[in-house]
Amino acid sequence: MEKVVVESFTMDHTKVDAPFVRKCGEICTPNKDIITKFDLRFVQPNETAIPTAALHGLEHLLAGFFREELSDIVDISPMGCRTGFYLIVVGSRAEEDVLTALLNSLKKVLSSKEIPAANPVQCGNYKDLSLFGAKEYAKELVDLLQKKYNLK
Amino acid sequence: MEKVVVESFTMDHTKVDAPFVRKCGEICTPNKDIITKFDLRFVQPNETAIPTAALHGLEHLLAGFFREELSDIVDISPMGCRTGFYLIVVGSRAEEDVLTALLNSLKKVLSSKEIPAANPVQCGNYKDLSLFGAKEYAKELVDLLQKKYNLK
Ligand SMILES: [Zn+2]
Ligand SMILES: [Zn+2]
Repeated sequence: MEKVVVESFTMDHTKVDAPFVRKCGEICTPNKDIITKFDLRFVQPNETAIPTAALHGLEHLLAGFFREELSDIVDISPMGCRTGFYLIVVGSRAEEDVLTALLNSLKKVLSSKEIPAANPVQCGNYKDLSLFGAKEYAKELVDLLQKKYNLK
Repeated sequence: MEKVVVESFTMDHTKVDAPFVRKCGEICTPNKDIITKFDLRFVQPNETAIPTAALHGLEHLLAGFFREELSDIVDISPMGCRTGFYLIVVGSRAEEDVLTALLNSLKKVLSSKEIPAANPVQCGNYKDLSLFGAKEYAKELVDLLQKKYNLK
């Protein structure tokens, strides 16, 4: 059997400077469609990790907001290391477009009054959700991304 | 703008009986390929949540093992609620095939001597990894899945 390579294990996490948006993979389907994977890194690897309630809150909020900003989203999921999210879309997409969508989505987080689906019917762990935490991380992230990419 | 529906918010989490493998979504690409999403639910929603180090450890272990068992995997990511993982594959796939792949992967977890990529270069939070925790959850899960699906 061919040796299995996990893409995220090939990036040197000591060399990156978070936050950032990085195209980290492209898959070609049998009929020649492209599936693109982006690394949305929110905090610096091995220095910070987003607490579960803030991360889970961001997952609920971004699930809807990102789909309003970007079409053909397959998935947006938190990383097990809690330093960011993976975004998967159908089609090729530029990092700048994903960055814009991320910034717009985070700004919507900042003006959110509640976390959607924060109840035991729609969520698997509804007590572990923090709107406060999600907003504080979003605020920091908007500032840092705008500085880094010279958008302010 | 069209109302955005997040698929996972439409399942009634109070009605399910974990653990289970559930096909939870199919997306058709422009050139008519299918992308299938599976809900691999490890623990009962709103009753248990897998601690971060065990969940993160399972993420590292399953990333490689699942790709040895199943072709055309796009992603396997932990849920923000920490009750399971989402698996995304290119192509149509039956729940039974994913269940078999999951069981084989979990059995490989049980015989693992270390967590792959458990270092600051390859991981974003390498101190938050528990091989012990990953194995204990895997052991319980193998038992419960085999009982539930009459595989023993
Ligand atoms: Zn949730
Ligand atoms: Zn990791």
